[in-house]
Amino acid sequence: MQETLGRLKSILAEVSDLDSATALLSWDQQTYMPPGGVIARGNQIGTLSSLGHSKFISEEVGKLLEDLKAYAESLDPESIDACLIEVTSRDYQKQTKIPSDFVAEFSRITVVAHGAWEEARKNDDFSHFQPHLEKIVEMKRQYADFFAPYDHVYDPLLDDFEPGMKTAEVQKIFTTLRPKQVELIKAISEKPEVDNSFLHQPFDEQKQWDFGERVITKYGYDWNRGRQDKAAHPFTTNFSVGDVRITTRVDSNFLNPALFGTLHEGGHAIYEQGVSQDLERTPLAGGASLAIHESQSRMYENLLGRSYDFWVYFYPKLQDTFSKELGNVDLDTFYKGINKVEPSLIRVEADEATYNLHVMLRLELEIALLEGKLQVADLPTAWNERMEDYLGIIPPDDADGVLQDVHWSAGILGYFPTYTLGNLVSNQLWEKINKDIPGLSSQIQGGNFKELLAWLHENVHQHGSKFKPQVLVNRIVGSGIKPEAYLKYLDNKFGAIYEL
Amino acid sequence: MQETLGRLKSILAEVSDLDSATALLSWDQQTYMPPGGVIARGNQIGTLSSLGHSKFISEEVGKLLEDLKAYAESLDPESIDACLIEVTSRDYQKQTKIPSDFVAEFSRITVVAHGAWEEARKNDDFSHFQPHLEKIVEMKRQYADFFAPYDHVYDPLLDDFEPGMKTAEVQKIFTTLRPKQVELIKAISEKPEVDNSFLHQPFDEQKQWDFGERVITKYGYDWNRGRQDKAAHPFTTNFSVGDVRITTRVDSNFLNPALFGTLHEGGHAIYEQGVSQDLERTPLAGGASLAIHESQSRMYENLLGRSYDFWVYFYPKLQDTFSKELGNVDLDTFYKGINKVEPSLIRVEADEATYNLHVMLRLELEIALLEGKLQVADLPTAWNERMEDYLGIIPPDDADGVLQDVHWSAGILGYFPTYTLGNLVSNQLWEKINKDIPGLSSQIQGGNFKELLAWLHENVHQHGSKFKPQVLVNRIVGSGIKPEAYLKYLDNKFGAIYEL
Repeated sequence: MQETLGRLKSILAEVSDLDSATALLSWDQQTYMPPGGVIARGNQIGTLSSLGHSKFISEEVGKLLEDLKAYAESLDPESIDACLIEVTSRDYQKQTKIPSDFVAEFSRITVVAHGAWEEARKNDDFSHFQPHLEKIVEMKRQYADFFAPYDHVYDPLLDDFEPGMKTAEVQKIFTTLRPKQVELIKAISEKPEVDNSFLHQPFDEQKQWDFGERVITKYGYDWNRGRQDKAAHPFTTNFSVGDVRITTRVDSNFLNPALFGTLHEGGHAIYEQGVSQDLERTPLAGGASLAIHESQSRMYENLLGRSYDFWVYFYPKLQDTFSKELGNVDLDTFYKGINKVEPSLIRVEADEATYNLHVMLRLELEIALLEGKLQVADLPTAWNERMEDYLGIIPPDDADGVLQDVHWSAGILGYFPTYTLGNLVSNQLWEKINKDIPGLSSQIQGGNFKELLAWLHENVHQHGSKFKPQVLVNRIVGSGIKPEAYLKYLDNKFGAIYEL
Repeated sequence: MQETLGRLKSILAEVSDLDSATALLSWDQQTYMPPGGVIARGNQIGTLSSLGHSKFISEEVGKLLEDLKAYAESLDPESIDACLIEVTSRDYQKQTKIPSDFVAEFSRITVVAHGAWEEARKNDDFSHFQPHLEKIVEMKRQYADFFAPYDHVYDPLLDDFEPGMKTAEVQKIFTTLRPKQVELIKAISEKPEVDNSFLHQPFDEQKQWDFGERVITKYGYDWNRGRQDKAAHPFTTNFSVGDVRITTRVDSNFLNPALFGTLHEGGHAIYEQGVSQDLERTPLAGGASLAIHESQSRMYENLLGRSYDFWVYFYPKLQDTFSKELGNVDLDTFYKGINKVEPSLIRVEADEATYNLHVMLRLELEIALLEGKLQVADLPTAWNERMEDYLGIIPPDDADGVLQDVHWSAGILGYFPTYTLGNLVSNQLWEKINKDIPGLSSQIQGGNFKELLAWLHENVHQHGSKFKPQVLVNRIVGSGIKPEAYLKYLDNKFGAIYEL
């Protein structure tokens, strides 16, 4: 059996190497690649994706997994080998349903679509992106059909990012969340506006960059195993546990994008850097799911980065850095400012109270597109209508509206709800962490994030994707993904800030 | 036949994509990769090299080539398809002799060796690199043996970079060159020293960087299809005709490395950018050989960049950029300064008269290592002894001696002589260009490089590697690679500067 398992691992290692190379091709495209490289890059990503896919869905892998079935049952179910065989089998069942040609074609199309989206966004011209998105939606429907029968056409897409999660479950959670969040926003809107004008002024770009890096260094991001670069749409990627990179963007007139962007991506990256080295070059080397991933990024961005405790430590340092700009803004004012609740255009810059409404809008549009109830050509209008319905504002242009997110250009549908699920999980974990580390609040006030990181490493990071997300959450907090902790957190936090 | 040829092209396109991805993995390693990524990067490059190699040497490719043999003979021998079949067949014959395991193993070893070399060079500690180089030499001997019988163990290595060239031919050319070059250097050494102290002073790094980019922009380097980044050892690489990147290094106290480095790599890159788009994703998309490649880089670096005509145009601009540093240095003094002949430590910074002696030294050491007449442990001593013999100077440390070049750490042996061959070819071409473009000298004085570029594009660049280097040279100048033009150029140029 050791030989069989060894052979499986050696194939999986090659697949992992191909995936890593593909990830680098993509990182490069979004950071440094000159425009002339785009067509060839599409071919390259297409070829490597297709090779990796073919290698993984080969009959040999199927045979090896079949041969290892009984052996896996004899193992400790939490052992690496048992989890490896289980996760690989699950993935194999899924992947063998997708033709290699489809994978290559989809990769090629999305690489070109990404370039078109960048152009479209730059020139505020949705029509330039429209035919690409139409093709993507059409192919995503084909994709779902590979997994028929399904309860909902959106289920197979969601499952790629949140293994085991169903559209109906998400809709149920969202149905609980929506009225509470709307109610909270309404209550806040009746209170005096919070001042955050000091966030919107010129801030030296290099100083912004350096401050963000200073924070995540304190968080425990290991620069020996990573780096930060600029990208139009920030993301985290990794090519091994030893090379986990983040990207950010800097707005010279607004403090938030770079600062909270870096904290957010730093959270993702610290998760990937914490995956056990023993899982390297296996399908287990990575986050358990997108929601679990987002729980880490949102924790570092919001539960820490937008908390009072955090700024007790960091605000004097930020004031030193921007003494002219923030010298006369006191900590309380700053804290309230960065937590101002205000319906706004851009999801990634939205406050914690309105954020989920951005996600709901996207989920509904994605579902409507896939169900065929909405045409891509009508998407800008539908986007703007919902923005008005949910947040009371209409984007002045598509660049800050329907074209703001990179996801669709990359062929990613089914991903958005994981942002909200991640918010929920972050708070479920946070309640438990605060029980397990009674002194956490004062540690944070002292700029000490070590015990927190050790807890996350022990309970979350090291496991990679050994466990399904619901299993992992359950191991830690004793339940599945639920909205109550998040709602309680919102009520407490904004109740205090807005004196509700 | 069209179907057979189509199938061959589709396999070659996949191989090309794998090669491009491997090149990106390597570019990234030398520019941006954090140190923690090195082990995984070795695995990734190993896996991709091995996959590309396996795909290329498959029985299917052999069968397709066999089936296409008669068809190829019916074609115009200069057509793309005929050249493609011929070059692919030649390469297939060669590659099928190398086991895939060897390729993967060698890639892994060199990736680690490269890291070790960087460390060794940083700490001036040859012993840190020694075991890696020993392994590389041992494997290079094994490599040569895959092609036994050979006239000389060095032949198969040389053939990888200079198809068809034999060690004996190179030695013959070098035997002509050496006494003439030694004689020239001796004559120069008896003349008054040229002053180039003004090149060794603080120069703003960013301004150096920008000036180099300004020059290659004038040369015709297309930034839409390329970029420049920093690297310890400058190189040019490409991932398609649409994405050809250069790297350089900047010395804040010496003008030459960044300036002439950028011009040199710019020459390589302009060659690759000029390859016909029709050759994309085939084995023909790339330079004809290393010597032909070097003929282009040395032409742009030396025949232009160290010529009087060139500086008639650019020197006022350089003086504007560095008015404090060069305001009082006149054009004649500057021209003589950048052409000062002086035995020195670093090959890439050597003047045109001494350069080839650096190459001869390396060739002799490589041959001695492969023949087993020299042990790697004795290499630093052998290096320093030859430096004293040929150039009269002993490196003060190994970092500026035996550890200065990246090549051996990358497993590249057999490459160095192509630098000298490239110098020779550059002058053979230059004589012909000046016949074909009578007004070239005044065009250069006016900063106009367009007709030159069009000539190079027409005669050299567009053909990629359709023709063997000797065939290409013969098509243009009517003979093979010869040293006379180069020797005449040296005599004329340095005769004038040193009043010999």
